[in-house]
Amino acid sequence: MEKIATDRYFDYYQYNYATDDPRLGYYFLISDGEATLVYSESGVTEAFNDQYAYFHYFQYPFINPIDVHTVPSWVHEAIFYQIFVERFYNGDPGNDPGSVSPWGELPKPKSFFGGDLQGILEKLDYLKELGINGLYLTPIFESPSNHKYDTTDYRKVDPAFGDKDLLCKLIKQAHENGIRVILDGVFNHSGYFFAPFQDVLKNGGHSQYAGWFHFTEFPEHGGEPKYRCFGTSPNMPKLNTSNPQLKKYLFDTVAYWMEETGIDGWRLDVSDEIDHQFWRDFRQLVKGINPEAVIIGENWHNSYPWLMGDQFDGVMNYPVTKSCIQFFASGEISAEEFAEDLSGSLMWNSDQANFSMLNLLDSHDTMRFLTWCRGDKKKLMLAILFLFSYIGVPCTYYGTEIGMEGNGDPDSRRTFDWDENRWDKDLLAFYQQIISFRKSCKPLQYGNIKMWADDGVFYLERGYGDEKALTVLNNTGEGKNIVLPVGKAIDWVSAEKTE
Amino acid sequence: MEKIATDRYFDYYQYNYATDDPRLGYYFLISDGEATLVYSESGVTEAFNDQYAYFHYFQYPFINPIDVHTVPSWVHEAIFYQIFVERFYNGDPGNDPGSVSPWGELPKPKSFFGGDLQGILEKLDYLKELGINGLYLTPIFESPSNHKYDTTDYRKVDPAFGDKDLLCKLIKQAHENGIRVILDGVFNHSGYFFAPFQDVLKNGGHSQYAGWFHFTEFPEHGGEPKYRCFGTSPNMPKLNTSNPQLKKYLFDTVAYWMEETGIDGWRLDVSDEIDHQFWRDFRQLVKGINPEAVIIGENWHNSYPWLMGDQFDGVMNYPVTKSCIQFFASGEISAEEFAEDLSGSLMWNSDQANFSMLNLLDSHDTMRFLTWCRGDKKKLMLAILFLFSYIGVPCTYYGTEIGMEGNGDPDSRRTFDWDENRWDKDLLAFYQQIISFRKSCKPLQYGNIKMWADDGVFYLERGYGDEKALTVLNNTGEGKNIVLPVGKAIDWVSAEKTE
Repeated sequence: MEKIATDRYFDYYQYNYATDDPRLGYYFLISDGEATLVYSESGVTEAFNDQYAYFHYFQYPFINPIDVHTVPSWVHEAIFYQIFVERFYNGDPGNDPGSVSPWGELPKPKSFFGGDLQGILEKLDYLKELGINGLYLTPIFESPSNHKYDTTDYRKVDPAFGDKDLLCKLIKQAHENGIRVILDGVFNHSGYFFAPFQDVLKNGGHSQYAGWFHFTEFPEHGGEPKYRCFGTSPNMPKLNTSNPQLKKYLFDTVAYWMEETGIDGWRLDVSDEIDHQFWRDFRQLVKGINPEAVIIGENWHNSYPWLMGDQFDGVMNYPVTKSCIQFFASGEISAEEFAEDLSGSLMWNSDQANFSMLNLLDSHDTMRFLTWCRGDKKKLMLAILFLFSYIGVPCTYYGTEIGMEGNGDPDSRRTFDWDENRWDKDLLAFYQQIISFRKSCKPLQYGNIKMWADDGVFYLERGYGDEKALTVLNNTGEGKNIVLPVGKAIDWVSAEKTE
Repeated sequence: MEKIATDRYFDYYQYNYATDDPRLGYYFLISDGEATLVYSESGVTEAFNDQYAYFHYFQYPFINPIDVHTVPSWVHEAIFYQIFVERFYNGDPGNDPGSVSPWGELPKPKSFFGGDLQGILEKLDYLKELGINGLYLTPIFESPSNHKYDTTDYRKVDPAFGDKDLLCKLIKQAHENGIRVILDGVFNHSGYFFAPFQDVLKNGGHSQYAGWFHFTEFPEHGGEPKYRCFGTSPNMPKLNTSNPQLKKYLFDTVAYWMEETGIDGWRLDVSDEIDHQFWRDFRQLVKGINPEAVIIGENWHNSYPWLMGDQFDGVMNYPVTKSCIQFFASGEISAEEFAEDLSGSLMWNSDQANFSMLNLLDSHDTMRFLTWCRGDKKKLMLAILFLFSYIGVPCTYYGTEIGMEGNGDPDSRRTFDWDENRWDKDLLAFYQQIISFRKSCKPLQYGNIKMWADDGVFYLERGYGDEKALTVLNNTGEGKNIVLPVGKAIDWVSAEKTE
């Protein structure tokens, strides 16, 4: 057996065993060369009692293929880019909402700037040159807000973003450029102006849509009823996803957009607050339409219950985000702790899930990473190197590559500055190079992973067949003598290059 | 927080928190009175960093009722009795199979004795007097074997057992006597003579039923194809439960028997070798027909993946069986280890699942418990006291109550001896008393549970509101001075009674 990981509490060992038999019973012998102990479902014992063998070996009773977590074949090679649509590029000022702030002004919670689908379409060349091959768009369906997480009409592209034809055109051209597109599915809650919700406000408990939400009280003498919502936002009434009629409506919607536009999957908003049964049926629906569609949840925590093969392929990997903030930006954890925390979270899930995680340094819901780093670009670059070396799908929040900064919402949602003179071109070139390198490096795409630390330096090794890729990150601020194994070395961050 | 359990490796603490809010984020403070540490999803740390609060508290994101494990309301009061139908009582010699051995002869693997549904019907009074209120019948559908785990026709009661009308009559009369009945669902494999299997043997890969099984090879020039089966039994070809046509056939069968006969649930044979998706859909089917039907899997191991609320209510609790053998019968584990092992297995699952476990000392698949005890009746009685004190549904294998013995299959399946002169009447009276006591004792039915050991003596406490029931078991073979809290004490096993 091989030790593949160590976290703050445990060592993890792995043994790969290939067999045609779908059944396997097993237990472990633990030996220090002299004494031997047994580890079985009975725990650690001095011997394995064959008289009760069937009672207490570990087992795969029968591996049924339908239970095996199968993920899209393309996730290993995917390199994603998240676009907050309203802030990326205003390609069609003709469809701007009524009152638009000047592009470049710092955003307020309710600012509009006019970013739209035409804007993304016109910048596909930029994205292609950057090298990404996947786009995650924040919501695009009709909604009164700039972020559009409060849907008014699930079947209509927001007029300020474009229309269905434009969406189809964007996805087609993205596909022609080798870029997959996933949309943001906001099924935990609707917007306040969603027609069925308005119907309940008007007709009370008698509305045919009353069961679509979580109403807790209808006042006897009129007035607004009480209902559960997302967080404390009354403009986002929580949907009752166990209601069969609502479920059919949402599933028809999901099928509609997949079939009409050919999108490559979904990012699922507030996915951990929706019932598991909804997600199980959702997976069957989505994979039935397109087995290669990806399903990415927005869970911020250990997501094992969603990643057993019956629900999501992966989730937005916020535990990794947190570890990156703590190691690269704030320096509050050591390289050892960084390796341990990452290793621990890897052991939560199967390899399939780990390869399908959307790994991110920042998003529309966090401070921008460069701001966590207080503008220290080298720290950001180390974190980017880590992100593109790690197992799973690296996802870049729009503008990170040109050095955009921003505090939490709404400041994390600034407009993309298209004046190249103000770009950090070194950072952009670095980004293009690391993307290109990842694309050429099978171990970074398909390899297993091991992490450790030595003398304050973090090591990440990916192995694929005979090939190995080793990423060495020195975040100590001091020079270190690092002895590398034979091979080709690239010094990505420091000024001096050594081979 | 209260320490509710200790196993060989951990202490387990519990805090009950009632709230109307379906969302909860939380972490723990661990204090020794001086220093305080934090336990969160980040592990044990010196402080909880509020800057990352959303990243690393523990949480119930949103408790959706549809995900909550809901079990039949009656499991707490259930007292089951397992009948191996062919060996319980021959009520109708007119339907006996061709060659029947004399009742009372020791069984061989292929013996028939003529036990049948009419036999159970005629002994309902006996069962009522014993006090049980639930029956689990081993399979009753047409099959060439005595155990009938190799089904020929899923829609037909085996003619040697009776017919559908008799089954309905039996269930009706059982219900009238307050006895629920669950049947054995054998969906992991069929019998060799199951018509669809025969069709594939005849027509090869072209059979419309080829996908119902796990055929791995069809010889080019005729001859029997290769197929997966249960264990190594070619007379039990494994069913491909992910095949939609087979699934529909089996589900229609399940609905048919539930609707025609009014049975109270299913015990599911070899349930851990069938795919999880089958069981998820099975649960929806069964609970849709009768929300109060119980679903009990036959899993011999830690069954958490099946007991999360979407599949089974409980399983046959073989880990408890094993601990009972090791503590009461063989004496190879101490009272401390017994308490620890049981506590550990309790912590695998939710309370709902623990209350729905079918707890057993023995079954048709094990040696009889009295035989494990080498005939030492007092050890059996201690084990019975334990079984009826423990959380979950006690299930008695037919004849244990009169002192039946038997080694492994086929000896564990002897005919029930209806000559009362040969019964162990003390044991039977003991059984009736403990059943009656359990029925009158709310803590034993509904209470929480704590176990510990002291001076080699095992203690099991059940608490329900202000009431407590304490079971004290001394399996040391030596006299012990035991100080009991104030209350009423019953000395169940030893000759001398103390109050």
